[in-house]
Amino acid sequence: MSEHPPRCANIVGLGLIGGSIAKALTARGWLVSATDRDPGRVSRAHQLGLIASVGLVPDAYVTFVAVPVLAVAETVSDALAKTTGFVTDVASVKGGVAQAIDDPRFVGGHPMAGSEQDGLDGADADMFEGTVWVLTPTPSTSDAAFAGVASVASELGAEVVVLGPSRHDDVVAVVSHVPHLVAATLMNLADQRAEEHTALLRLAAGGFRDMTRVAAGHPAIWLDICDQNRDAIVGVLDGLLVQLGVMRSVVADGQRDDLERILASARHARTNLPSRVTNAELMAEVRVPIPDRPGAAAEVFSLAADLSVNIADFEVFHSAEGGRGVLIAVIDASQSELFRGGLLARGFRPSVRALG
Amino acid sequence: MSEHPPRCANIVGLGLIGGSIAKALTARGWLVSATDRDPGRVSRAHQLGLIASVGLVPDAYVTFVAVPVLAVAETVSDALAKTTGFVTDVASVKGGVAQAIDDPRFVGGHPMAGSEQDGLDGADADMFEGTVWVLTPTPSTSDAAFAGVASVASELGAEVVVLGPSRHDDVVAVVSHVPHLVAATLMNLADQRAEEHTALLRLAAGGFRDMTRVAAGHPAIWLDICDQNRDAIVGVLDGLLVQLGVMRSVVADGQRDDLERILASARHARTNLPSRVTNAELMAEVRVPIPDRPGAAAEVFSLAADLSVNIADFEVFHSAEGGRGVLIAVIDASQSELFRGGLLARGFRPSVRALG
Repeated sequence: MSEHPPRCANIVGLGLIGGSIAKALTARGWLVSATDRDPGRVSRAHQLGLIASVGLVPDAYVTFVAVPVLAVAETVSDALAKTTGFVTDVASVKGGVAQAIDDPRFVGGHPMAGSEQDGLDGADADMFEGTVWVLTPTPSTSDAAFAGVASVASELGAEVVVLGPSRHDDVVAVVSHVPHLVAATLMNLADQRAEEHTALLRLAAGGFRDMTRVAAGHPAIWLDICDQNRDAIVGVLDGLLVQLGVMRSVVADGQRDDLERILASARHARTNLPSRVTNAELMAEVRVPIPDRPGAAAEVFSLAADLSVNIADFEVFHSAEGGRGVLIAVIDASQSELFRGGLLARGFRPSVRALG
Repeated sequence: MSEHPPRCANIVGLGLIGGSIAKALTARGWLVSATDRDPGRVSRAHQLGLIASVGLVPDAYVTFVAVPVLAVAETVSDALAKTTGFVTDVASVKGGVAQAIDDPRFVGGHPMAGSEQDGLDGADADMFEGTVWVLTPTPSTSDAAFAGVASVASELGAEVVVLGPSRHDDVVAVVSHVPHLVAATLMNLADQRAEEHTALLRLAAGGFRDMTRVAAGHPAIWLDICDQNRDAIVGVLDGLLVQLGVMRSVVADGQRDDLERILASARHARTNLPSRVTNAELMAEVRVPIPDRPGAAAEVFSLAADLSVNIADFEVFHSAEGGRGVLIAVIDASQSELFRGGLLARGFRPSVRALG
């Protein structure tokens, strides 16, 4: 794209996501201008070279509104009034904004990216590489606005997924919002029981740690999310309560066949959960038990680097009982035999499974 | 211990845990004899050098019963009748065995270790290093039996934690059994909704993957666990249903302060969850954001190896929204500044927190 004249974008709100969009666009040759409630943050972003100028450029190609979810509708209206280009936002809940805004230049968005770090310090030009960026057009969204914002999201390395606003909100209630509330509830339950059983938390092994990890996040954003996505979250919680009630009956009544059916169905679904990285047909999953000694996991990654095998995604599995981990790496299927050979040669015991 | 004559142990059941105990004891100079329902498995263990002989040695120091939980009581009785030494088991539920067996030579046990791999192929001499091995003595257990079995568990590298049988069962219901059933339920719920929302599973990011990972396990063992620990599991499920009902009301009624209190309490508890590795007073937690490029995680581990920093435990955190990971490593607190300096020098942005 370097032969084109620089394109221009505005960012409103230089938090983690706004800052990362600024950094990513600047790195790709865009001229970025930004505002924030906190003028100190804007000057810091300017000093760091994340943005080229301060304020909203009226004829910018696109304006990204990256403010807290409760402030989005008002800020989008303001951006539409002050600029002539496309406007999008990055909030985790989309229904409210879609109802409030009725303008062909607006399309809602939700880049499903983030990190544990807050604010400008966590800004990362590559934050959106390989992630899903949901766009939520409404009947009033123009094709030009949709295509324009989608092309920028793609340029930042994201896969664009299109969903209606309320469908988006239903889906994230299932895969993100309710799981977060469940993690918090499980953690609190264990913590309360730990008062009577002092050894309890010492027995909390890998599986429990995995299940409650998200509960370590900041509460603030979740208060807004629960406020904005109330109906979908309550609906999913109701479904969960029904199914946990069934689970309770099945266990209490010793209905072994029903329990087996439920667990087998969950196992099947989890095993077939698509990798976060896309194009599963071309990917393979390599499982490598990691011996419990320093450097073992490093060897797996070093070997991948030596063999030019790109690990597109990885996670570390601990059994519910604790003990050693299994590193699960997702790689290009065409490299799976190469990688397996290398791992075997280094004394690992990998198993490979094609995805998709 | 090499100056002592070899000590002798029996193993009944050469699955993953039994095989690993056999391998670990043999590696430490014990003479191990074993039986299994499957004679082929015993000869295989013999060929692999995991055991020295076949059958039960009548005057063995200790006999480990490592059979499925429903067969434990009968197998322990048999071992007590055929041998004169101590007898212990390794089942995940302890109440039933404790009620069935009333012998001073028996103490129940539960090594909280395992791996994704089943059977003899996953057997690992170091499986118990750094893990918790619960012993559940009853009033009929002799001091000699308790101390004898505890010393063997320690020799295999485990930390011995003592709990009454029913207390053990209550605790594992909270930190292992119910979380497993919840993971399966969440996974099934998402899978059912995925039928109407085809994009749903593509939006399932790191947090959801972490929460449902254990649901990929084999159902079989959980059927027995739910059978044997029914009362404790149903009790914890009832508590969970109540608390999720409260969560539902709090969200439905928009009780922001209550929601904040619940989430803040969970955050506090999760942040203070003790590491799986013990002696937290001397450990530090190093959090390192991992850039999304091949080899970045490897660099962290390689650097640790270069600096002789032993990573005692690690996990990879993905935010609920997906995107980059944060590697959380637990190391000796005395090495934390050394490690931090090295990480900064290599361009990482670590943060360090003392544990305990």
